[in-house]
Amino acid sequence: MPTISEKIQHIQQQLHSENHASTVSLLSQLNVADQARILSRLDARQQARILRQLNEPSLVYAFMPLGQQLNVAQHLSISELVPILDAMPSDDFVDIYKQFSPPLQLQLMSALSEESQQTLKDLAIYPEGTAGAMMSSSFVTLSPDLTMDEAIQALRVVAAGQETLYLIYIVDAEERLIGVISLRQIIQALPELSIAEVMQRDVISAQVTDDQEIVARALAYYDFIALPVVDAQQKLLGIVTYDDAMDIVEAETTEDILKSGAVTPLTEMSLKTAPILTLYQKRVFWLVILVFGSLLSGIGIAHFEEIIAAHIVLVFFLPLLVGSGGNAGSQSATLMVRALATGDVEFKDWFNLLSRESLVALCLGGTMAIAVSILGYIRGDIMVAVVLAISMLGIVLMGCLIGMSLPFILNKLKLDPASASAPLVTSICDATGVILYLFVASKLLF
Amino acid sequence: MPTISEKIQHIQQQLHSENHASTVSLLSQLNVADQARILSRLDARQQARILRQLNEPSLVYAFMPLGQQLNVAQHLSISELVPILDAMPSDDFVDIYKQFSPPLQLQLMSALSEESQQTLKDLAIYPEGTAGAMMSSSFVTLSPDLTMDEAIQALRVVAAGQETLYLIYIVDAEERLIGVISLRQIIQALPELSIAEVMQRDVISAQVTDDQEIVARALAYYDFIALPVVDAQQKLLGIVTYDDAMDIVEAETTEDILKSGAVTPLTEMSLKTAPILTLYQKRVFWLVILVFGSLLSGIGIAHFEEIIAAHIVLVFFLPLLVGSGGNAGSQSATLMVRALATGDVEFKDWFNLLSRESLVALCLGGTMAIAVSILGYIRGDIMVAVVLAISMLGIVLMGCLIGMSLPFILNKLKLDPASASAPLVTSICDATGVILYLFVASKLLF
Repeated sequence: MPTISEKIQHIQQQLHSENHASTVSLLSQLNVADQARILSRLDARQQARILRQLNEPSLVYAFMPLGQQLNVAQHLSISELVPILDAMPSDDFVDIYKQFSPPLQLQLMSALSEESQQTLKDLAIYPEGTAGAMMSSSFVTLSPDLTMDEAIQALRVVAAGQETLYLIYIVDAEERLIGVISLRQIIQALPELSIAEVMQRDVISAQVTDDQEIVARALAYYDFIALPVVDAQQKLLGIVTYDDAMDIVEAETTEDILKSGAVTPLTEMSLKTAPILTLYQKRVFWLVILVFGSLLSGIGIAHFEEIIAAHIVLVFFLPLLVGSGGNAGSQSATLMVRALATGDVEFKDWFNLLSRESLVALCLGGTMAIAVSILGYIRGDIMVAVVLAISMLGIVLMGCLIGMSLPFILNKLKLDPASASAPLVTSICDATGVILYLFVASKLLF
Repeated sequence: MPTISEKIQHIQQQLHSENHASTVSLLSQLNVADQARILSRLDARQQARILRQLNEPSLVYAFMPLGQQLNVAQHLSISELVPILDAMPSDDFVDIYKQFSPPLQLQLMSALSEESQQTLKDLAIYPEGTAGAMMSSSFVTLSPDLTMDEAIQALRVVAAGQETLYLIYIVDAEERLIGVISLRQIIQALPELSIAEVMQRDVISAQVTDDQEIVARALAYYDFIALPVVDAQQKLLGIVTYDDAMDIVEAETTEDILKSGAVTPLTEMSLKTAPILTLYQKRVFWLVILVFGSLLSGIGIAHFEEIIAAHIVLVFFLPLLVGSGGNAGSQSATLMVRALATGDVEFKDWFNLLSRESLVALCLGGTMAIAVSILGYIRGDIMVAVVLAISMLGIVLMGCLIGMSLPFILNKLKLDPASASAPLVTSICDATGVILYLFVASKLLF
């Protein structure tokens, strides 16, 4: 039996041979995620041609990256596109629909099934980034009076097209969430028991207005397969499933990491295929912003030109002192931003963390001060060594406190704390470091 | 009905009142993850006292952070600890057992149930970081001859204590994996069909020696609830579940992020509670390593002392030029390390990426060169402007290429590409930037 990767290789050879009938039959044997992966290496016209002939075009289409979904849609007629969209998981369907051009949206609106049209009305009202926008409106509810055996029969009837059968929600006459039961519990319980006797009544749920990242992290925290989403009246509106949660945690993390490198996040784009101009735009903003930090360092140096001219040995140590402050500050900011993102610390912990950080900074600064003063004594004299030791201690301490505080300050200013990037912290620490160092030197060396 | 967070608040008040009976009964109503979260705010002695009385101490214990698991174990007797360990999910049990002190391991070994002892023998042989070490040995297999109705009956019998019932694996007489069927398929299929008729035969599986991060990412990619783990003979050894995969992706990401900030990763430790000395140790290594980069910058400056003394305006622009190279390089390294981690790009794409990066770098460098040469003309003269423009272009280009290449070079040296941290890239770019700038200046300004 050939392995999956052998099959993928074989299909890729077929793609080059333009033998479409055999390609399609080979593809259809694979998992939909793999089908989407193979399709992603083709151009949009080829993708459209193959997609038309697949067994489960909706699921494959749902697995394709957003940019490709948009491109391939342009190569499909409305009558080809509508059944694909109608059969997609509802959350994925709403996501892609929102990205279509307004003329295409208009054309589709009247052609889509009534159910899809309702889904759009239901889900499209929630702002991007909330639980409402990420939830699926396809979930299973059962009546609390059913026995376990009846529940299994009922599930058979409603199963088709549901996001998951593994968590079944129990609602009252006003559609308010009153319980949850897992398919596992249904299988394990005595067949004659009723759902009301077995179900769990304290249901952990998300509010429809909750931030998507918080919902995703809650799901990961509880190890649930899905989390129900309710409105203020506890009315069940949808579910968020673990696979969507994983995607969101991954996307939010990538966003944070790129910000930490002073890059405006690329949304739904591959580094391999993103246009050069887009990559340029994502980076030039921060590079130009950071110029101001560097100019401040330059002004600092210009201000202390005399002391530099008198003690040229100071210049030799300038990159070392200034760099160490930036490095220590980057460490602090990185630790803090990640701890905030994973929920390890909260903003109210700031004061406590700041005092701990001061202790760590004193240890780090002390170590670096001893090291640099030895170097200073070798290249200069005892006074240079003293200047270096004092400056290093001060610069590392200041760097750590800046790196630790910046995420909190950004948050207070309603900005994303993840924007406290290493380059930003380095630029700020550089400028303050230059000034501190040359100020100490000018006082002690005259 | 009080909400979950109201309950948690209420319990925390109870904890202070030392009324243990009522605390325990309140706690037991919560989800095990929440029970663990509340326990984590107590000291180990209190944790042990409450844990003894909970309904599902094993599940709560499994949700506690590793450090607390170790501490609380010291406050439990062997006869108290054994039933907790015996009833834990097998992968969590092996993880914690490996961390116990050798004397405790020895005491436990003979006291544990035969099943737990077998699990230890089975799982403990796989090296840390492989699919084998993260997999659970609790999975459900059924015979392919059963009908759907018989399968449901069979599941009732074997359900207790299984990690998941939702994916059922089908093995042949030699325990080789030949198929998979979901509980959903069992519910949805006609009751009289046999498993062999419904099951999927091309099972996507992981090898027991595969890297845990790759397995976790594969699981996320396919949106599976679990992935089977097999040996070279396709013999089914265990499963990896989506919740473990989420934890691993999260832990690996935190590791990468901390490395990107030049911090040696804290394993299983909170920023709030990690000892100051540990935080110091995790950071001082990189700070000292980076000193060498800064010293190189200092040597560069010292070498060109004459040209600096002759054109003191050069010093004013030094931080700007050198900083821009480091910032652009940090951006490149961040983009590259993250794209490698998420599987967006692979090492074989390096050459292609490098040529794309050169184009982006030329655009970025060009923009910065124009900006800095205007400043240079204002503060200096036309020749200074030319020196600045050439240097800026060269420095940004070099910074980007260094930032993009460093992760690949580290990989070739069998080091983690994530160690290409912003501070490391900045230090290297600073040193090369200083030398490039002052070299250009010395050639053009005499």
